[in-house]
Amino acid sequence: MTSTANPLAPEWLPVPDDANALARAVWPSGATRRDGELVLAGVSATDLVRQYGTPLYVVDEEDARRRAALILDAFRREFGRIGASVSVYYAGKAFLSVGVARWMAELGLNLDVCSDGEFAVALAAGFDPARIGYHGNNKSNAELEAIVDAGVGGLVLDSVYELERVAAIAAERGSRQPVRLRVNSGVHASTHEYLATAREDQKFGIPLADVPAVVAAIRAQPSLEFLGLHSHIGSQIFETGGFEEAAARLLAVQKELLEGGPVPSLNLGGGFGIAYTVADDPAPVGALAAQMAAVVEAECTRLGIPIPNMAIEPGRSIIGPAGVTLYEVGTIKDVRVEREGGAAVRRYVSVDGGMSDNPRPELYGAEYSARIASRVSAEEPVLVRVAGKHCESGDIVVNAEYLPGDIRPGDLLAVPATGAYCWSLASNYNHLGRPPVVAVRDGAARLLVRGESIADLLSRDAEAQPVSEVPA
Amino acid sequence: MTSTANPLAPEWLPVPDDANALARAVWPSGATRRDGELVLAGVSATDLVRQYGTPLYVVDEEDARRRAALILDAFRREFGRIGASVSVYYAGKAFLSVGVARWMAELGLNLDVCSDGEFAVALAAGFDPARIGYHGNNKSNAELEAIVDAGVGGLVLDSVYELERVAAIAAERGSRQPVRLRVNSGVHASTHEYLATAREDQKFGIPLADVPAVVAAIRAQPSLEFLGLHSHIGSQIFETGGFEEAAARLLAVQKELLEGGPVPSLNLGGGFGIAYTVADDPAPVGALAAQMAAVVEAECTRLGIPIPNMAIEPGRSIIGPAGVTLYEVGTIKDVRVEREGGAAVRRYVSVDGGMSDNPRPELYGAEYSARIASRVSAEEPVLVRVAGKHCESGDIVVNAEYLPGDIRPGDLLAVPATGAYCWSLASNYNHLGRPPVVAVRDGAARLLVRGESIADLLSRDAEAQPVSEVPA
Repeated sequence: MTSTANPLAPEWLPVPDDANALARAVWPSGATRRDGELVLAGVSATDLVRQYGTPLYVVDEEDARRRAALILDAFRREFGRIGASVSVYYAGKAFLSVGVARWMAELGLNLDVCSDGEFAVALAAGFDPARIGYHGNNKSNAELEAIVDAGVGGLVLDSVYELERVAAIAAERGSRQPVRLRVNSGVHASTHEYLATAREDQKFGIPLADVPAVVAAIRAQPSLEFLGLHSHIGSQIFETGGFEEAAARLLAVQKELLEGGPVPSLNLGGGFGIAYTVADDPAPVGALAAQMAAVVEAECTRLGIPIPNMAIEPGRSIIGPAGVTLYEVGTIKDVRVEREGGAAVRRYVSVDGGMSDNPRPELYGAEYSARIASRVSAEEPVLVRVAGKHCESGDIVVNAEYLPGDIRPGDLLAVPATGAYCWSLASNYNHLGRPPVVAVRDGAARLLVRGESIADLLSRDAEAQPVSEVPA
Repeated sequence: MTSTANPLAPEWLPVPDDANALARAVWPSGATRRDGELVLAGVSATDLVRQYGTPLYVVDEEDARRRAALILDAFRREFGRIGASVSVYYAGKAFLSVGVARWMAELGLNLDVCSDGEFAVALAAGFDPARIGYHGNNKSNAELEAIVDAGVGGLVLDSVYELERVAAIAAERGSRQPVRLRVNSGVHASTHEYLATAREDQKFGIPLADVPAVVAAIRAQPSLEFLGLHSHIGSQIFETGGFEEAAARLLAVQKELLEGGPVPSLNLGGGFGIAYTVADDPAPVGALAAQMAAVVEAECTRLGIPIPNMAIEPGRSIIGPAGVTLYEVGTIKDVRVEREGGAAVRRYVSVDGGMSDNPRPELYGAEYSARIASRVSAEEPVLVRVAGKHCESGDIVVNAEYLPGDIRPGDLLAVPATGAYCWSLASNYNHLGRPPVVAVRDGAARLLVRGESIADLLSRDAEAQPVSEVPA
């Protein structure tokens, strides 16, 4: 290709040699092309769309399972070397359905939930409550009662209010509730940097300085069992500096806590980054696990304390790269943009979804990539912005990508790395129904979550006619 | 009150004399206190919560109707003075239910929709299609067919693709579809400033320079009827500078278009700002209408062209200030924040909703205000940040507000100005069901939209057991 870069393209986006290529880092392992067409775990994009329509969330089941197993194996191996066991909690907030909860259970992962709704999905999947961690800065009394009654294995305590409430609920029932204590470590990591302060200006956790007193209060409650400290330092993290700092801070407190009784485990939370575009370069999970184990070992040795058992909470890094969203292209528009050094053209490619099925670009300025799914093309790549169909100019699906210059209405477009925080954050903005979620594996597709019809949307309108009378 | 400002408070937020007061600018007209308690259109907050639970969206029906009527009257009066008629389209994307669509129909407003889902609500409300405007940068063929078949009064054409498609569909049916042409005027206004360029770098509209050719193409289609140009310059606009610039640019093109045939009307879109907090000071609707009429008159006189009939599309300014969200306080946490000049304390007040029922703070950095709804208190005000219950540190409902220092779990908290773009952008993040929407009027409440139960959420999970077997 001899194409030159469009001056409107961000610096991180190179003109590709082949605008049809599926970069390994951002596509699920089961993604390939057959006769030019995108195939996911053996199922072609057009077959998926013929059966389920567009937009459509597709999850490569083997890819998600493989990533979950890789994380479990790597952390067990690396922490096993230093004599610690590891529990891996899948963070359900990234994407949770009954099917996915069952995959995680089968693989030996635990599960994190943070609401009665997520807990209901877990129970509907038959997930063992003893293997569930329950998060939240403001759990209701009804939630706390359900947690105690079901025998949830790890309640993550977030406030002194909650400590008192759950202690009373468990005491009333004559049971003993295992709890971790969420700590505001003052470490906040995101992508390529982390901040460390005395404490973070946020709603979660107990400041480190107050932890000994709160742990003493937990230990003073016969109805509570103290499992250890919990720290979550951020999202989409690419290096281990923040985890190291958080581990060092928590283990220093842990030494103090050990004087008052056992501290069986340490939970360092989640936040492992993934590649949304070719510009992202997350650390391989093996290296991540090895570095975290080395830090924990070194700190414990330095402090002269036993190495605790470990827990981590990956969500995005398991399900994110396994997901691909399929759209159909509807309209295309070349917009001449005036700029210093002369005008340039940005091609707006509009698809039949948008911020309702993926609000992350608008929420976080998240970047994504895209490929034509229904065919390949040897046309020179042009810079495009993929827009949704919502009545909002910020409705962007892919901010910047190079696609073959003959992209046209009717093409199917695939956006990879949409397995996490797309469906789970989806809305009905502009009364668009949310797309179905389909799992693909071994050449077959099956429905994980049904899509919404217009009748579904109208069914909650208290003044609508019965759905059967609604005009088509 | 002798309270001093918390250094963490934003500059625009004064320490209130009375942290129970309901500022007229941000509360619906039917909001008052009775025995200390917040009352909305004669219905007390505790009565509402007893019947419908929390979180709860409440719409003051009279307030919404009054604002709609004020806008209609002001624009008809001011444009009537210069001999132009005015159509006011309620922008359904702000909030649309069958009930609200009927209020607008009764008041003589027209309705804007931008999807098949919004159109279905309008039809379910019995809204006359001839009074509907249909927007969208990427309408599907099915949508275009439904538009033509139903006799939608104003299709807002957004691309040459769409022009050709809708012309063919209408021709096939032997009908004539009225269309406006959306223009990318290059004017973008938001809040206190506007930008004007050759064209805006966004997905909507046809660049001004291309408009004559596209209008000629519309006129060349016997199945299309050209209504005029359409411009929408932004959201939450506080002054008329942007509208004036857009009107001037469009009318200059209009003069050129008049050489080829009639241009009956001009649609200047919506975007009128509202007060989310006491810091916001939107122009009164009468002044807005008078200024816009003056600009249109002056430009038409200068250009020597007839004054066109006008259309505007308010949404937020009708329904936004009419809405109040009620929450229950669950936990409270004082976080010491280190800063230059010494530490300060920010009080985090966590409620039982959050970014799922109001994503605007996270999407747009939107500011809101709050009051305790269930009582008044003479305690000195303290700076609070109202957080939701979601598993995300960015889950903020009210970034900064002064509330009585004895705020405590169990208090009901009311957040005003949530009538627009809260329910419509709501998600099920963390598997939280969306709250119901209730209208209050003359001391009575009635359901507009049913809330979602956990059973509702599980009902779309294809691998869940039947809902009746789901554990409670």
